[in-house]
Amino acid sequence: MRRRKIYGWGYEDEILTAEENQELEAKWGPYFGVDQFEPRPAPTLDEIELRKPRVTPPGSLSSICSTELYDRAFHSYGTSLRDSIRAFQRDFTNPPDVVAYPNTENDIHALMDWCGDESIALTPFGGGTSVVDGVEPPKDGYKGSLSLDMANFNKVVEIDETSLAARIQGGIKGLDLEAQLKPHGLTMRHYMQSYALSTFGGWIATRSSGHFATVYTHIDDMVENIRTVTPEGVIESRRLPGSGAGPSPDRMILGSEGSLGIITEAWTRVHRRPTHRASASVLFDDFYTAAEAVRTISQAGLHPANCRVVDETETQVAGAGDGTQSMLALSFESAHHPVDHWLTLALECCADHGGHPIPEADETARRGGAAGKYRNYFIRLPFHRDFMTPRAILGETFETAITWDRLPEFHAKVVAETEAAVRDVTGGKAYVTCRFTHIYPDGPAPYFTWRGLGRWDSMLDQHAEIRKRAGDIVNELGGTVTHHHAVGRLHRPWYDQQRPDLFADAYTAAKQRLDPNGIMNPGMIVG
Amino acid sequence: MRRRKIYGWGYEDEILTAEENQELEAKWGPYFGVDQFEPRPAPTLDEIELRKPRVTPPGSLSSICSTELYDRAFHSYGTSLRDSIRAFQRDFTNPPDVVAYPNTENDIHALMDWCGDESIALTPFGGGTSVVDGVEPPKDGYKGSLSLDMANFNKVVEIDETSLAARIQGGIKGLDLEAQLKPHGLTMRHYMQSYALSTFGGWIATRSSGHFATVYTHIDDMVENIRTVTPEGVIESRRLPGSGAGPSPDRMILGSEGSLGIITEAWTRVHRRPTHRASASVLFDDFYTAAEAVRTISQAGLHPANCRVVDETETQVAGAGDGTQSMLALSFESAHHPVDHWLTLALECCADHGGHPIPEADETARRGGAAGKYRNYFIRLPFHRDFMTPRAILGETFETAITWDRLPEFHAKVVAETEAAVRDVTGGKAYVTCRFTHIYPDGPAPYFTWRGLGRWDSMLDQHAEIRKRAGDIVNELGGTVTHHHAVGRLHRPWYDQQRPDLFADAYTAAKQRLDPNGIMNPGMIVG
Repeated sequence: MRRRKIYGWGYEDEILTAEENQELEAKWGPYFGVDQFEPRPAPTLDEIELRKPRVTPPGSLSSICSTELYDRAFHSYGTSLRDSIRAFQRDFTNPPDVVAYPNTENDIHALMDWCGDESIALTPFGGGTSVVDGVEPPKDGYKGSLSLDMANFNKVVEIDETSLAARIQGGIKGLDLEAQLKPHGLTMRHYMQSYALSTFGGWIATRSSGHFATVYTHIDDMVENIRTVTPEGVIESRRLPGSGAGPSPDRMILGSEGSLGIITEAWTRVHRRPTHRASASVLFDDFYTAAEAVRTISQAGLHPANCRVVDETETQVAGAGDGTQSMLALSFESAHHPVDHWLTLALECCADHGGHPIPEADETARRGGAAGKYRNYFIRLPFHRDFMTPRAILGETFETAITWDRLPEFHAKVVAETEAAVRDVTGGKAYVTCRFTHIYPDGPAPYFTWRGLGRWDSMLDQHAEIRKRAGDIVNELGGTVTHHHAVGRLHRPWYDQQRPDLFADAYTAAKQRLDPNGIMNPGMIVG
Repeated sequence: MRRRKIYGWGYEDEILTAEENQELEAKWGPYFGVDQFEPRPAPTLDEIELRKPRVTPPGSLSSICSTELYDRAFHSYGTSLRDSIRAFQRDFTNPPDVVAYPNTENDIHALMDWCGDESIALTPFGGGTSVVDGVEPPKDGYKGSLSLDMANFNKVVEIDETSLAARIQGGIKGLDLEAQLKPHGLTMRHYMQSYALSTFGGWIATRSSGHFATVYTHIDDMVENIRTVTPEGVIESRRLPGSGAGPSPDRMILGSEGSLGIITEAWTRVHRRPTHRASASVLFDDFYTAAEAVRTISQAGLHPANCRVVDETETQVAGAGDGTQSMLALSFESAHHPVDHWLTLALECCADHGGHPIPEADETARRGGAAGKYRNYFIRLPFHRDFMTPRAILGETFETAITWDRLPEFHAKVVAETEAAVRDVTGGKAYVTCRFTHIYPDGPAPYFTWRGLGRWDSMLDQHAEIRKRAGDIVNELGGTVTHHHAVGRLHRPWYDQQRPDLFADAYTAAKQRLDPNGIMNPGMIVG
C-alpha cells in the first residue's frame, strides 16, 4: 500500500523530478548567492527511534489501534514548515503513543471512553495536512496520546440529486470524494491546495475555503448539517437548506478544530459539473489598482468562481510574468448557461481600472499562458518544501482578511514588516509576495508568502521570530489571524488576542460540558 | 409624540380606513357565513389596570426607567396573534414592572447589575414586533421584570463607503436606518414585513431575513462583527469581511434572542442603491411546477433579488389572481449593470416549466398588476389583525425550510394537516396557503398562512390546538421550526425537539458563564 511521506507533502513516491530540482537549484542558488547547496537527506524510518508507547489500548480496542513505527512517526506531524523542519532534523520526540483507525461511531465512543478514563489526549488527524500545527499531540499534561485517523470513514453515503446535496463521511479525502461524486455528474468543487489529501471532516473542523473565490467560499456555507461524536455523546443537527432557529449548532462545530469531538458525517451542497466556462488573465500595472478592479467586480455582484489577484513578484516567481505587473485570474463557470456576458462585464470593470487581458483566448494557450503557468506552479508548490527545507530555505505563507478601506495601508505595512523581519533574522535577501484568495463585497482575503535563507541549526527559532513579527503586524492592523488555514498551535498567540475573552470563557464552559476530561485535541482554541 | 398601539401593529394613528374595513367585511363575512360581525372594541388605556410594580429601580437608574401605564402596557407584548388576542381581551396581567431606556452601555451594565442583584428578569424589547412571544416577561421565577427598550441607540454611527459597510446601533428601527443611509446613496435592503418598526439589534438577535430571496438572505451573512453587553461584560468581535479563526463568536450571538446579552452595535454590509431593475410576474398552472422553476433558477446561480412563489389560493386572497394559478414574483437589481440578461435566463427556466409571464412591462402597469396588488396586500396585512381579532377570526402564519427532495410530500401534508386542524377546532371553513419567502440551491423556505373563524372566549386555546398540530407535522417531516421568525416562547416545544440535546447543554453552560444569575430573557432558547 502506498504510504505518505513522514517528512512532507504527498506520498513516498511523489518526489520532485530531477528537472524540477535543477530548476529550483537554478532559481534559488543565484537568488541567495549560494554556489552549491548542501542539502540534508530526507529522514528514513530506520533512522528514527520513537519513545516507547506510554499507554496500551485495552484488548477490545487493539484491533483498531496501531503502535507501529511508521504509523506513529507519520502521525507526529502535519505539513507546516515547522513540521518539515522538525522531520528533516529527525526530531520525532513527541509522537502519539497510539494511532487508532475506528470503523464505526461505537469505536470512536470506546476510544474516547478509554482516553477519558486514562487521561490520554485524543488528537484528530484529519488528512494530516494542517499547516498550523493542529494535529500533533500535546507535549505534557497527559499520561499518553492517541492520534485518531478517520481513514475508514471514506464514503459518499447518500446523494440527493434533486436538492444537489450529499451525505458524506468525515474521513474521506477530497480526491476520493470527487471520484465518488463524479459518476453522478456532481462535484463539490471545494478545491484548496491540500484537497487531494485533506478530509471532509477536517475541512469542517477548520472552516476551510476553496475553489470559489466569491459567495459560498467557506465550507460553513455549504454544510446542511453536521454529525459529531463528542465524549458525552452525539450532536447531530437537522438537515436543512437554511434555518433561523436559535444559534446554529453547526457553527459551534465549524472551526472547533477537534476540541469538541469528531465529525463523522455531514450533508453538504454539491454542484453539477460545469459545462460553460469563460475566463481571462488580466494584467495591471499596480497591485492596488488590480485590487480596485476586483472590489468593483465583487460589489457589482458578478460572483466569479475565480477572482484571484497575484502581485507582480509572485507572478514573476511563478514564471508567469516579468515582475512589473500584477495578474488577475478571472473565471466564471456554470452548469446551466453560457457565462460570457459575466466575463464581459467583469472585464469592463478591469478596463476601468487600467487592466488589460492577455490576448490568449483558447484553452490550449491559456493552460500554457500566464494563468496556466501560475496554476502549475501552485499545484507543485507543496512539494517544493522537499527541496527547500533540507537547504535551510525558509518558505512560509500566512493568510488573513481585511476590509477594503484598510487594505492599502495594511498590505504595505505587512509586506514591509515581514520583509524586514526576514532580512533581520536571516541577514540575507528576502521577498514577500501577496495574492488574494477570496473576495468579499467588503474586503479581500490576502495571502502572503515569504522566503529567506536560514541556518540549518536555528531554523525553528528563525521561523518563530519572523512569524511573530508577521503575526503581530497583522493583528495590530486588525486583520484576522486566519481566513482558512485554521488556528492550530501556530496561531494561538494572536487568536487569543483576537477572539473576545468572554467568548473564550463561554466556549470553555461549552467544551467542559461536552469534553469533561479535556481529552479532545488539547491546545486547540481554548485551554 | 406618536405612540405605538398597545394591541396591534403600528402607531395609534395608523388604523384601517373605512374602505379597507368594508372590503374586509365583504370578504370575510360571506366566506365564514357571517351576516354581521360584532367586533369587540380595541382596548384603551383607561380600561387597563396593571399590577403594581413589584420592584423599584434605585435612584441612580430612575431617570432612564419608567413605570408609566402606557410604557408598561405597550411593553407587555409583541405582535403575535396571541398578543393580539390577549390585548383585545384586556389581559394585561403580566406586564413588566419597569421599562428602561438606556442611553449608554454603562446604563445597560448598571441595569443588568440591578437585575442580577434583585433577581429581576431582563427582557430586551427590540422593536416589540416579535410574532413568537419573544418579548414578554416570564410569568414566574423572578421578583420582578424589566423590559429593556433600546430606542436611544438609534444611529448609523459610521459609514465606510469603500467597503460598503456601516456601523449601526442596535436600537435603530429599519425605517430610520434606511433614512440615515439614504443621503450616502446606500441602503441595507434588509426589508422584512416588520422592518419599519423592528430594530437592527433585534434582527441580529433573531436571525432575521428579508429582502433578498437568494444568496445573502439572513442577517447572519451581512454582519461583519457584533458588540454585545452581557451581564459579565462586553463581547466584541473583530470587524472582518470573512474569517476562519475558530468558531465564529458572532454566530453565538446571532439567534440568541436576548438570552446572552444586549446587542449595542454592529458593522454590517450595505449596498449602493440599485439603479437597474428587471422584473416579471410569472404564472404557473401548478404550485409544484412553479417550485421546479425556482429550483432551476436557484441551482443555475442566477441569484435573483426577489424570487417568491405564491400559491394559487394566496394569490387569489391577495386579489392578484383567480385562484387557478400560482404566481412567481421575480426580480433582479443592480447598482452596476443592466440585469435584463439575468431576467431573460430566469424566464427561460420558467418557460421550461410551463410558466408564462404576465404581459405587463412598464413600472406603472406592474404596480397595478398582479405583483403590485400582491405587494400592497403584503404591506397592509399586519393591520388586518385589527379587523380580524375583534371578530374572532383566527389568522396566523408559520414558516420553515426544507430540502427540495422532500418538498412535495412536506407541503401536501402540512397543508392538509393544518387545514384539518383549523376545521376540527373551529368547526367551520378554513384555508391554508403557501408561498416561498427565500430560495436556496438545496431547498425553499415555505411560509404558510391559515385562517378560520374562532370563538371569542376560547381563541387562545383554539389557536394553541391548531398551532400544535401544524408545528407537530412540520417537525415530524423534518422542516425547521423557524426560518426567520425566531423561536421565542411559541416555538420552544418544537425547537426543543429540533436542536441537539447536547448542543442545548453546551449552550446552557455558555449562558451560565455570561449570565450567571439567569436574568437575560428567561425562557428563550434554553432553561
